[in-house]
Amino acid sequence: MDELTRSIRRSVWHGWGDPAEAHPLSAAGWSMLGSLGIARGPKSPPVALEEVVLPPIALGDAELDALRQVVGDGFVHTDRRWRVEHAGGKSYPDLWRLRRGDGSQAPDAVVEPADAGEVQRLLEVCGALRIAVVPFGGGTSVVGGVGAAGGGGVAFAGVVAVDLRRLDQLLHVDQESRLATFQPGLRGPDIERALEPHGLTLGHYPQSHQEATLGGYVATRSAGQASTGYGRIDDIVLGMRVATPRGELLLGGRSPASAAGPRLLDLVVGSEGTLGIITEATLRVAPRPTAKRYAAWLFPSFHAGSEALRGLAQDVGPGLLPDVCRLSDEEETRVNLALAGRSGAALLRYGRARALPAPVLVILVWEGTDAGALKHRQSVSERVLRRGSGRRLPSRVARAWEKGRFSGPYLRDELMGRRILVDTLETATTWDRLGTLHAEVGSAIRSSLEVGGRGVVVMCHVSHVYATGASLYFTFVAAESADPMAQWRAVKSAATEAIVAGGGTITHHHGVGVDHAPWLSAEIGDLGVDVLRAIKAELDPAGILNPGKLLPPAEGSSGGAADGVVEAVTPGPDPGLTCTPDLS
Amino acid sequence: MDELTRSIRRSVWHGWGDPAEAHPLSAAGWSMLGSLGIARGPKSPPVALEEVVLPPIALGDAELDALRQVVGDGFVHTDRRWRVEHAGGKSYPDLWRLRRGDGSQAPDAVVEPADAGEVQRLLEVCGALRIAVVPFGGGTSVVGGVGAAGGGGVAFAGVVAVDLRRLDQLLHVDQESRLATFQPGLRGPDIERALEPHGLTLGHYPQSHQEATLGGYVATRSAGQASTGYGRIDDIVLGMRVATPRGELLLGGRSPASAAGPRLLDLVVGSEGTLGIITEATLRVAPRPTAKRYAAWLFPSFHAGSEALRGLAQDVGPGLLPDVCRLSDEEETRVNLALAGRSGAALLRYGRARALPAPVLVILVWEGTDAGALKHRQSVSERVLRRGSGRRLPSRVARAWEKGRFSGPYLRDELMGRRILVDTLETATTWDRLGTLHAEVGSAIRSSLEVGGRGVVVMCHVSHVYATGASLYFTFVAAESADPMAQWRAVKSAATEAIVAGGGTITHHHGVGVDHAPWLSAEIGDLGVDVLRAIKAELDPAGILNPGKLLPPAEGSSGGAADGVVEAVTPGPDPGLTCTPDLS
Repeated sequence: MDELTRSIRRSVWHGWGDPAEAHPLSAAGWSMLGSLGIARGPKSPPVALEEVVLPPIALGDAELDALRQVVGDGFVHTDRRWRVEHAGGKSYPDLWRLRRGDGSQAPDAVVEPADAGEVQRLLEVCGALRIAVVPFGGGTSVVGGVGAAGGGGVAFAGVVAVDLRRLDQLLHVDQESRLATFQPGLRGPDIERALEPHGLTLGHYPQSHQEATLGGYVATRSAGQASTGYGRIDDIVLGMRVATPRGELLLGGRSPASAAGPRLLDLVVGSEGTLGIITEATLRVAPRPTAKRYAAWLFPSFHAGSEALRGLAQDVGPGLLPDVCRLSDEEETRVNLALAGRSGAALLRYGRARALPAPVLVILVWEGTDAGALKHRQSVSERVLRRGSGRRLPSRVARAWEKGRFSGPYLRDELMGRRILVDTLETATTWDRLGTLHAEVGSAIRSSLEVGGRGVVVMCHVSHVYATGASLYFTFVAAESADPMAQWRAVKSAATEAIVAGGGTITHHHGVGVDHAPWLSAEIGDLGVDVLRAIKAELDPAGILNPGKLLPPAEGSSGGAADGVVEAVTPGPDPGLTCTPDLS
Repeated sequence: MDELTRSIRRSVWHGWGDPAEAHPLSAAGWSMLGSLGIARGPKSPPVALEEVVLPPIALGDAELDALRQVVGDGFVHTDRRWRVEHAGGKSYPDLWRLRRGDGSQAPDAVVEPADAGEVQRLLEVCGALRIAVVPFGGGTSVVGGVGAAGGGGVAFAGVVAVDLRRLDQLLHVDQESRLATFQPGLRGPDIERALEPHGLTLGHYPQSHQEATLGGYVATRSAGQASTGYGRIDDIVLGMRVATPRGELLLGGRSPASAAGPRLLDLVVGSEGTLGIITEATLRVAPRPTAKRYAAWLFPSFHAGSEALRGLAQDVGPGLLPDVCRLSDEEETRVNLALAGRSGAALLRYGRARALPAPVLVILVWEGTDAGALKHRQSVSERVLRRGSGRRLPSRVARAWEKGRFSGPYLRDELMGRRILVDTLETATTWDRLGTLHAEVGSAIRSSLEVGGRGVVVMCHVSHVYATGASLYFTFVAAESADPMAQWRAVKSAATEAIVAGGGTITHHHGVGVDHAPWLSAEIGDLGVDVLRAIKAELDPAGILNPGKLLPPAEGSSGGAADGVVEAVTPGPDPGLTCTPDLS
């Protein structure tokens, strides 16, 4: 995790990241999909930028001038490129719309404040003028969290995206307490680059690392690939400064823990821009790792593999267990090994020869500053793994995973360009329910997509383990139907209903956005939703902050106030194809 | 931590716990206090139960009958003993009032529901009849959290204490996920006794362990002596069922972590009965320890000792650092060694001979199920301690601490009975501020108490360490002034102002109650307080739940609605004298 990757300041507007970093699917990959009944369809490229149909700009000169007075003339943008680049995040529906030239989720304008004071004044101006505000960090939401959904209707004069890229400073490092205070606009690699001279790391590596921002991490309650070791964002955030229409909130920061009533910090973490805009956050940092160890194991089944991970989480425990703990199920392992060419085939033969006809792959990474301690951690972990029925593989298998760990989402663009539906979704549950939930969600996805006799791939991996449970991350692929959005809505709905019925959370780290909002009541109850609404009404009385996100549409709402919300209720997907390890 | 202690079902009404478990202060102890200018005053015993002056019962027959219809005739108590036993918690002001026969904080009645359904119906009945409700677990609040303060005024028909002792079942154990679901009324030793047959422990050992309840732990965001190892309550609670006047809240429980919006569970944790009554809680449990290791060290100064603890928290880290990590400052070490008689004197001589004229004592305990792993943990920790300037002591010093770890608070009763003021208070902060905060709060306490040339003892220890900071726990002793409550209010206020100014949290584990409520705005801001009020208004529209607690008195409130609140604004203390290790 110590190698710095490139920060992507502005992704391609119709897809993931910087296409220059994409690796096209290999011939073997296409051949494997074909063998599963998923044929490469005709080319289906996105429209040209000029062809995107944008709604007329609802804001008048007076309103735009009021915004310019806050941030300066050069930082209010109404031109086509800026509007299109902020016309949604990276969810399947967001990209599906844009590829076809539907710019209906574009804001009227994009505003770039310079500092916390300007953010605060923007909220005051927008509140007074009833302008909806969509906070915008890296724009990598895969749940419809940053579209200008709620601003186009009768309730608002218009909608602006508040792009936080100019708030990109590391403000303070406290070596003694191992804390760092950041502005919200730093992207993942920028965070690491700023901490590097101090010998520190945040250790936060979601698949969106190269584009996503610190503020986005906090606002969406993010978890990254090494969060089993370094902790989720909600574990490591200690304090923050938040601009709200009612004024500034200063939360936490005094101490690592407190009994001074409910922890309000935990209301803003995960609030997805609906309660305020985070203008500073103080997070726990760790010594920058100087050493790393890798291991890969095969187990005979998902059950055996998840029991092995449970052993790590419960019997090795925090501080010793690997920083990265991943387990691919049978189908994901099979697909990934097939994509890996000859070395993958060799691993499959190795497994078959050892009575592992449908093996599952476990990837483990330990990192730290003390080689001796790392060696001890690995030996303690592998002692626990040896209790099971697994087989150790060469560690280069784990290194290969790491090499490709940010590249998965690019494949979605390539497949969408060939009329193949592909998306991911995730959940988490307690260990006692994990096996059943894995089976039932996988089955719901498969049943939904198999309509019309389509070939389907449904893969899953565990990427985060805890003493009490683990996450499940599904990737699914099928040929597009005649109405891909209807097809997608059906599979999203089927999967989420299965998650709710099976006792999982509706999202482990992607967030709620518009795509999961219809199921928030299933997670926290109608009364819980009422509590969230009351909090929002207190901090954002005019309701200008990221309307339509997080909270389910109000009962009896006709959707008239915000056409985007209605679209949104028909769920939207999320990114991050599983990585395809290059084992060659 | 594996030895089960006795559960105290009902403490003495005018003091701490069961006086049969108290150990009187030794002659050497009195002599040491005397040498510091704190003389044993004349005997000042509490009044007899019959002499306590109780307010007339405000509730009429119709209201009492409505309560009886919910819980049954035998479970609504209006007799003197029940009312007095619920006339406050164990704060200094609570006990000071009761010892003098002031029963003004008594509820009109005590109600004992049998289950979650009865709790829910009670809240509905009380809401309809405008009866204030004080949730009552172990009654060990040391911040005025359970007095019937807010119920005596014009706003309510009366006030009932809802005693949860009948909800005392372990409902479910999930061995696979290492989770246990409890009713709220189990006391600390009952929790451990219920988990023992399953080979599990909660590992939660506050000084109030023998009386405090699981529901109280959760409602006050509790931390115990071994929480450095097992985690605070807020770290280990996964889900809960909460009765509110608006209906039931079911929060969490689906997964160890989630990105489904703000974590509402964290609103109820620490809500101190102002938002609802916890009727079930699911918490992470751990394998019951079968082995233990102890260590004690002397360091030359509080600074050197806290640097050693910082090394443990940051460089040894979770999973390896001791489950119990304590550091007494110079004055606490000196007093404790003096109280320990000959063996303490021997340690002081040992220190002086090694250039430690004013040493500080560090106590460490590791526990677990694998003797080899424990030995490794200890050796890793002690390697870090050896970097500093400390000296290792015989491990029996740490065992002696453990033996007396629940007995400290009894001393307060003995000293109050001799006209000596004694109390404790606590905070936490980040490592960079710890030394200054220790000095400044200690100095504020001393300056306040020294008025009139009094002898003063101000001791402090660190009891909880984190990667980013640590707690500070102060104990202070002085001869009573002519107006001990004024004396106490002055010292409480001076200490809390110093905590706020020094960047500490107003409470690390005692909670807010009425005593810290005036400073809640300093912790979370006026806007944060408004958010809490909005949440309360949503869940408890009639404001019947534990009025006057947690939230600061509203601006412009004359206090007319609740005389108790006005009293409350003049702070109240907290318990837990530091333990006096018996080193003999």
